[in-house]
Amino acid sequence: MAPRKLQVAAAGLGRMGKRHALNFLNRTPRAQLVAAFSPDPEELQWGKQHLEPYGVTLYDDYDKMIERRGLDAVVIGTATSVHAEEAIKAMEKNLHVLCEKPLSTNIEVCKEVVDAAKKRPHLKVMCGFSRRFDDSYRNAHQKVEQGLIGRPSILRSQTCDKHDPSGFFVAYAAWSGGVFVDMAVHDIDLTLWFFGDDVIPKSVSAYGITAVQPDLKKHKDYDNAVGIVEFHNGKIAYYYCSRMMAHGQEDTTEIIGTEGKLSVNANPQSNLVNFYHSGGITREVPHDYYGRFEMAFVKESNEFTAACLDDTPLPMKLSNAVKAVQIGAWLQEALVSGKQIQFDEIGRRIEKANL
Amino acid sequence: MAPRKLQVAAAGLGRMGKRHALNFLNRTPRAQLVAAFSPDPEELQWGKQHLEPYGVTLYDDYDKMIERRGLDAVVIGTATSVHAEEAIKAMEKNLHVLCEKPLSTNIEVCKEVVDAAKKRPHLKVMCGFSRRFDDSYRNAHQKVEQGLIGRPSILRSQTCDKHDPSGFFVAYAAWSGGVFVDMAVHDIDLTLWFFGDDVIPKSVSAYGITAVQPDLKKHKDYDNAVGIVEFHNGKIAYYYCSRMMAHGQEDTTEIIGTEGKLSVNANPQSNLVNFYHSGGITREVPHDYYGRFEMAFVKESNEFTAACLDDTPLPMKLSNAVKAVQIGAWLQEALVSGKQIQFDEIGRRIEKANL
Amino acid sequence: MAPRKLQVAAAGLGRMGKRHALNFLNRTPRAQLVAAFSPDPEELQWGKQHLEPYGVTLYDDYDKMIERRGLDAVVIGTATSVHAEEAIKAMEKNLHVLCEKPLSTNIEVCKEVVDAAKKRPHLKVMCGFSRRFDDSYRNAHQKVEQGLIGRPSILRSQTCDKHDPSGFFVAYAAWSGGVFVDMAVHDIDLTLWFFGDDVIPKSVSAYGITAVQPDLKKHKDYDNAVGIVEFHNGKIAYYYCSRMMAHGQEDTTEIIGTEGKLSVNANPQSNLVNFYHSGGITREVPHDYYGRFEMAFVKESNEFTAACLDDTPLPMKLSNAVKAVQIGAWLQEALVSGKQIQFDEIGRRIEKANL
Amino acid sequence: MAPRKLQVAAAGLGRMGKRHALNFLNRTPRAQLVAAFSPDPEELQWGKQHLEPYGVTLYDDYDKMIERRGLDAVVIGTATSVHAEEAIKAMEKNLHVLCEKPLSTNIEVCKEVVDAAKKRPHLKVMCGFSRRFDDSYRNAHQKVEQGLIGRPSILRSQTCDKHDPSGFFVAYAAWSGGVFVDMAVHDIDLTLWFFGDDVIPKSVSAYGITAVQPDLKKHKDYDNAVGIVEFHNGKIAYYYCSRMMAHGQEDTTEIIGTEGKLSVNANPQSNLVNFYHSGGITREVPHDYYGRFEMAFVKESNEFTAACLDDTPLPMKLSNAVKAVQIGAWLQEALVSGKQIQFDEIGRRIEKANL
Repeated sequence: MAPRKLQVAAAGLGRMGKRHALNFLNRTPRAQLVAAFSPDPEELQWGKQHLEPYGVTLYDDYDKMIERRGLDAVVIGTATSVHAEEAIKAMEKNLHVLCEKPLSTNIEVCKEVVDAAKKRPHLKVMCGFSRRFDDSYRNAHQKVEQGLIGRPSILRSQTCDKHDPSGFFVAYAAWSGGVFVDMAVHDIDLTLWFFGDDVIPKSVSAYGITAVQPDLKKHKDYDNAVGIVEFHNGKIAYYYCSRMMAHGQEDTTEIIGTEGKLSVNANPQSNLVNFYHSGGITREVPHDYYGRFEMAFVKESNEFTAACLDDTPLPMKLSNAVKAVQIGAWLQEALVSGKQIQFDEIGRRIEKANL
Repeated sequence: MAPRKLQVAAAGLGRMGKRHALNFLNRTPRAQLVAAFSPDPEELQWGKQHLEPYGVTLYDDYDKMIERRGLDAVVIGTATSVHAEEAIKAMEKNLHVLCEKPLSTNIEVCKEVVDAAKKRPHLKVMCGFSRRFDDSYRNAHQKVEQGLIGRPSILRSQTCDKHDPSGFFVAYAAWSGGVFVDMAVHDIDLTLWFFGDDVIPKSVSAYGITAVQPDLKKHKDYDNAVGIVEFHNGKIAYYYCSRMMAHGQEDTTEIIGTEGKLSVNANPQSNLVNFYHSGGITREVPHDYYGRFEMAFVKESNEFTAACLDDTPLPMKLSNAVKAVQIGAWLQEALVSGKQIQFDEIGRRIEKANL
Repeated sequence: MAPRKLQVAAAGLGRMGKRHALNFLNRTPRAQLVAAFSPDPEELQWGKQHLEPYGVTLYDDYDKMIERRGLDAVVIGTATSVHAEEAIKAMEKNLHVLCEKPLSTNIEVCKEVVDAAKKRPHLKVMCGFSRRFDDSYRNAHQKVEQGLIGRPSILRSQTCDKHDPSGFFVAYAAWSGGVFVDMAVHDIDLTLWFFGDDVIPKSVSAYGITAVQPDLKKHKDYDNAVGIVEFHNGKIAYYYCSRMMAHGQEDTTEIIGTEGKLSVNANPQSNLVNFYHSGGITREVPHDYYGRFEMAFVKESNEFTAACLDDTPLPMKLSNAVKAVQIGAWLQEALVSGKQIQFDEIGRRIEKANL
Repeated sequence: MAPRKLQVAAAGLGRMGKRHALNFLNRTPRAQLVAAFSPDPEELQWGKQHLEPYGVTLYDDYDKMIERRGLDAVVIGTATSVHAEEAIKAMEKNLHVLCEKPLSTNIEVCKEVVDAAKKRPHLKVMCGFSRRFDDSYRNAHQKVEQGLIGRPSILRSQTCDKHDPSGFFVAYAAWSGGVFVDMAVHDIDLTLWFFGDDVIPKSVSAYGITAVQPDLKKHKDYDNAVGIVEFHNGKIAYYYCSRMMAHGQEDTTEIIGTEGKLSVNANPQSNLVNFYHSGGITREVPHDYYGRFEMAFVKESNEFTAACLDDTPLPMKLSNAVKAVQIGAWLQEALVSGKQIQFDEIGRRIEKANL
């Protein structure tokens, strides 16, 4: 008899939602995409064409979809504002959840999801930080585990997007949570992975500019920002996020240890081609995040599926997703206020008049 | 109603056969692997574990398998010696064929396959030269088509395997056809792709050594060989094959035009990690051919499937597969004899006493 | 008649002093090294062997040396603590001055040198920031001037030394001025070059750790430090200095503009060799600052000499050297205090109780 | 007393001659350029401006120059056709000789120079193969000596010039000796260095095209050529020379051993700058041979000078210069005839009717 496949429903068929749905449909052998939901008629139209013919039932009502019999899991790729609510509802229906990051841009809401998950330890609930599934980051992490760089002490990480002259990200800034919550959250998550998820911030500082999109200021956001997080155990992480790259997506990380260093993507490239011309030698760079991390998303859906079917541990803790957003929110606060935020050794924020 | 999937049978479950079977089973959404054949009990045992549970019927008799009702296509990954026979039998059963390279190490046998295919123009018959499906080679080829390097004139290409100290390839040399047929055939196929498949060789020369495996000599083979093919239209290709690399698989190609150059894999690397240590900065390299070209094989099965289902042209001509083997065989002959082979302008071999 | 050569005296024959002396002796065709001074008998002994035979008179008294008839210029490579005094004395003797950086770790003392130079505008007085003479930095600066990256907005720069397990730099920390004054001063100088020397800091923040040399704490110094300088004109520079690199010297800079980016030394390497071995592909990295910038020092002595002989402008302003040290000192202060420092729009420090 | 400097005269003030003269004048501390010769009034005019003011006496008669009292050595950078004659005359005047490559494009003439030198073993006579003085090649050679790649077995080397659309090299082909003598001679010299200068060719083959400059055919030359030299000790070298590069000078070498590989200049670059723009990431490449090897020429003049003054061995044997030209001439002959040339185990050419 054929082994049982994980019966998966996809919520949201926007940019990322479509990708998750197709990955579960076509590139996750142990899963079967059986349902998909979108509140948006255009997205449903896309679903009629690309999902329905392959046995996927479409829904315009999330609640109805998760009542479907035989369903095992939901992958949530809707707008960030409904991630948490949908995740909690899914758990209440006894469904495993793979939720696109972040759970919420609001920490309290993030924590509600974690609390809901804690009550149902038999469910697999994961917030997808895609870089943890990337071959290069995995390889770097293994090398750290093997002790090849000694004690990791400094981490530099950047998330830099190709400049989108349409100005889309100005409108998006209204609800993205700001650059540190939207972009650097990946770099912060990597920090927790490489430094250990028990690290306690000591101070948080950040500065930004609006070099190409001054309208961001009305949403208190920036198109370039730099931040530093100092931790109590003698480690420092520093971040750069930008929406201004001319050349493409450039997400680079360095992990610097007492006995060596690892870099990931210090030489960005789309492929193995070099073009030699009268101006020199040129290589191309992925245009966007998905161009860089497509295979990581595929690995994510496969590892999530395996954990659900085999009841094995997920590769990352849900609580980290909250911690990453929390640190991102502090960075964003420091960015907007121009003021450093400090914490004591057990992580309590120090509110000093004279800070 | 669900769109029809291509019903595929896999012949051969050895090293490459397993990969083809799994790619059709798991990574080719429009295909369904329904049957698999191997004459080898161990391979069948593997099939029982990895294929049978997913609805794949196993056969120890190729002829029986291809009689299966509803079958559309066969992917052939058996030993080279039976490729041609199996391909022809499949065509006789009106099945599309994707055959692992080469069709045969014998040119006459190759031609029989081509003849059989010509008689059944409604069938899709492809000999898989995986590099044509690799993103980097595709990108380079597009750039050539766009005229970015002017007229392609010189091609350098190498297939270099990581040294396998087990000596496996000594035994393998008995029936591999020799380094130029077994390894350089890929480089020759690329030549036909970049120079045009109508190029006519003018001369063929080759030289080799046995640097690490002197026993190869008993099979008239070499562990390192260099060859040059001069074409009548003012183009030259030169090749290097080696089974002696310490660092891993290094398949590199340069296409040099009158106005620019393209390189593919001039900087081999497994991933985007650099490790900085007291001896310098180190990056790793794929260990084998599949480590370098895995995604090309996936694309191959998908494009083959699409061509069968949609009755669209295959991305490569079957006759090229013969031409590539033919040139490889001439290089091998030149290598063993130490003598140049020459051809006239319509491709007839010049047999001169005083050549 | 042979063109007149610049008659140069070298002060200091320590590590950098020796290099300056030899560069003026052997690699600065328009200069003639005629005198050298050191207070140290061992250094003088070295001079007897390497300088005296080539017509260089040795002195153990700086004041006597600068009284020498016919002298045109002094290159100062003594201990930092005497740079300023020696520079001022030389100017009083009407001598041009090339002073190793920094003029002093004390800002007031730096300013005295600048004031002394202002009174003698016919003298060429330069504080050597070697990276401004490096071919790669020059090339990057030209590209910025040509507008290739739009408006430079973010600068990332690091000075990272190979770890010296002897612990030399612990003792050195007693009088180096700290990592930001000693190391990052180069990165700050580059910032002034790429952003314009009229930029006004808005805020300065810095954080550090002692990962490999805890004894640094007694000198209030760190072996790894990260700092951010925000400028009033909407630009940000961020810095990393480390004395902990396993692999060698790694001084890297990125200049990020509104329309492109430039990197200098993103791929550190000693030479053009790659070594392919069973662990991958390895390239080596310069072991120290001089290994990376030797030719920049040679260009520095030549350009200084030309400016003196031809009475042409020096390639950099002396006042920048003060500004760079000043910003370095603020970063160091922020590093030690853990507190951000702020400045108003005309550069006055904002001393707020509640900052 | 000042140590004696080597009194050097420069013959020829053309493109390379000027560089040699200036290197001995300005960048060879132990040498003193005292005389320079050119038969060309324009070149002498250049000398009046750039050499005479610095104490260099100009001559329009080579014979007179070498009679000059006190002269120790001559650096010969005249036209190839007079290299040998001038070298021999210099030896007859008891002068050391550094001769630009090649000694002659005629092997018999080369040998006369070697014979003349053998008779005067107290003289240092060197034919400058600049790559032997390049830091990267030196580093690679050291690694081979240390056994890091096992037994060197295959060498790939190319000399590729930036395309000069002026067509200068067509006229030049009339007396250059052809691409293999003019360009590949460097690659052949490297072969002798890495394989050992006692290697005996077993066969020589070569093929060429005229892709951008058909007029070369009238001089029996080619703008792109590929050649293979098989040696009797189980080693193979293969070469590529081109005058058609769009991007600049690209001289690359790989030394492949039984246990590893070394590459020199697999990633050509002018400097450490990368430019990131909307088309990708671009690095520039040296425009010409001198842009790549300038410092090697400086080291060459310094090491030659040291060998003369200290009577220490030169870093390379004169006889190699003949052997390299000889192999180059065979390659050129094979190129033009389209026929392989063979040699027996003691290096005698095998002239077979039926070869």
